[in-house]
Amino acid sequence: MTTVAAYAAPAARAPLERTTIERRAVGENDVLIDIAYVGICHSDIHQAREGWGKAIFPMVPGHEITGVVTEVGPGVTKFEVGDRAGVGCMADSCRECENCRAGLEQYCADGPIWTYNATGKDGQPTYGGYSQKIVVDENYVVRVPDALSLDTAAPLLCAGITTYSPLRHWNVGPGKKVAVIGLGGLGHMGVQIAHALGADVTVLSQSLRKKDDGLRLGADHYRATSDPATFEELAGTFDLILNTVSAPLDFAAYFSLLRTDGALVNLGLPEEPVQITLQSLSGNRRSVSSSGIGGIAETQEMLDFCAEHQVAAEIELIRADQVNEAYERVLASDVRYRFVIDTATI
Amino acid sequence: MTTVAAYAAPAARAPLERTTIERRAVGENDVLIDIAYVGICHSDIHQAREGWGKAIFPMVPGHEITGVVTEVGPGVTKFEVGDRAGVGCMADSCRECENCRAGLEQYCADGPIWTYNATGKDGQPTYGGYSQKIVVDENYVVRVPDALSLDTAAPLLCAGITTYSPLRHWNVGPGKKVAVIGLGGLGHMGVQIAHALGADVTVLSQSLRKKDDGLRLGADHYRATSDPATFEELAGTFDLILNTVSAPLDFAAYFSLLRTDGALVNLGLPEEPVQITLQSLSGNRRSVSSSGIGGIAETQEMLDFCAEHQVAAEIELIRADQVNEAYERVLASDVRYRFVIDTATI
Repeated sequence: MTTVAAYAAPAARAPLERTTIERRAVGENDVLIDIAYVGICHSDIHQAREGWGKAIFPMVPGHEITGVVTEVGPGVTKFEVGDRAGVGCMADSCRECENCRAGLEQYCADGPIWTYNATGKDGQPTYGGYSQKIVVDENYVVRVPDALSLDTAAPLLCAGITTYSPLRHWNVGPGKKVAVIGLGGLGHMGVQIAHALGADVTVLSQSLRKKDDGLRLGADHYRATSDPATFEELAGTFDLILNTVSAPLDFAAYFSLLRTDGALVNLGLPEEPVQITLQSLSGNRRSVSSSGIGGIAETQEMLDFCAEHQVAAEIELIRADQVNEAYERVLASDVRYRFVIDTATI
Repeated sequence: MTTVAAYAAPAARAPLERTTIERRAVGENDVLIDIAYVGICHSDIHQAREGWGKAIFPMVPGHEITGVVTEVGPGVTKFEVGDRAGVGCMADSCRECENCRAGLEQYCADGPIWTYNATGKDGQPTYGGYSQKIVVDENYVVRVPDALSLDTAAPLLCAGITTYSPLRHWNVGPGKKVAVIGLGGLGHMGVQIAHALGADVTVLSQSLRKKDDGLRLGADHYRATSDPATFEELAGTFDLILNTVSAPLDFAAYFSLLRTDGALVNLGLPEEPVQITLQSLSGNRRSVSSSGIGGIAETQEMLDFCAEHQVAAEIELIRADQVNEAYERVLASDVRYRFVIDTATI
């Protein structure tokens, strides 16, 4: 066991504060990572405030983790001390179900063991990356390529893979038209990755306020959803629409923007049920789906892709003691485009 | 112009009665078909009673048409007098949009010209198959293979293609598990075709009342949805669920029966909006979609497939003057499994 400093929410909706937690001893297949940076994901806030249901406290959020390996267990084969490493939303899974065997650990039949707000195989609560060190089985650790900076790479571990996985699954590439609803943490990754994959990319945002950013990030078009002409002129346009917005939408209007066989894929997980009217799917074999992060091998593939295409997050680096203020700014959509905590300040 | 006898609804919700209608002269690319049989589809009733919105009256329903070609226009190349022919839901389409060019005429950007309750390219209302003869452009006519009887083949033109198309589109075959919700006109075709495609087929029906029929038609399993154990035991089972039921369902419960990447495809088009809660799709990249009939080439492919596998509808042959009674029995789900009108009795 190692005692490490961390930032934790002591109870639901309580401000995060500095504390210490225990990390397990490095086991046979574990690596110990000195965390350098950790991104602040909207889902950290959902969970710290119990927006998704009962949670485990004290809670150390954080699942966009990058750092350097400082110790490896005797059975570790993929990592050496000094390697640049990343940990995302999952710290383990059953490894035996059909999905785990297929590299779809994120859909593990037992549910993956999340990096925080979960119970590990040792029966202890898992604690996330708002901390100085973490111990993770090497099979749930990915390598951060040298071409990526550890700070701007951190958000790739959640926001990056959450957009990369559906873009790949729905075969986005040259000749395909993709829309991204919302230019926030997820959206700004989706735009960059879809562009790097060769697609024609449109941002659908409430206003044109962030248009310059969107075009700079690789969008070919940027349209305001507050303008009815957007829906008239883009009817039947898109092969894929990635919805990164958690707020309720007029889904029927967005379905009308899909081509035949087009899909609207929801990435955000709103706290309230969202309802859609099925009839609005009829007529063109359109579909609505949902996608969550990606598997471990796919996460590595995504990092390698981002390194090759020089894709990373645009971040605002903060000190750990700014985390509560950052949460409020995330809720107000006042961040371009991801807060990343410098864990040296914990 | 030719005057032919027909059964028509003179106004919304009025009983159908015998009348006469005019068919256009056989044009350059037209074939004249002596109609032998016409199936009664639930959508005939929806439209005759204006359940789907304002309709055109008098209305001659009927889009499951089989018969024999008795005259061809000078430009016709695919049909000769004496050929066995079928006409389904579409009598024409724009032929120029991307979907028409891709053989997806059912998703024509202008909307296909439906066989009845529509306006033809000549500006005249279209009249369906509850009549003695019909004139259709040869490109919207399919060939009925000799191995199929004209009476039991008639329902293939709608119920057959409506189930065949999604089964093919979602790659159903050996090793795939398919569920069909509801064993009615659509369902009894879906079961037979999915079985002929080599899938493992489960009927999900309210009760076990039609279990013997379901197994005889090719289902491997038959489960009652009124039994909660069905949903517990079949969780995560199906690659594809075809929903042939128009009544509102507990969609979240059915989504839970899908495997990772499984799809629930709605084939019925209920008169009232149906709402689903998006959250119930999360966790396994499940999707919900909708599919309508199939293209003309695919309809021909379906007929050839049915001929090869000796698949056809189970029908109750009726006289034309029984049509109003038959409508009531369809609404009461009291038909195994499709009424077909012998048009010689009109």
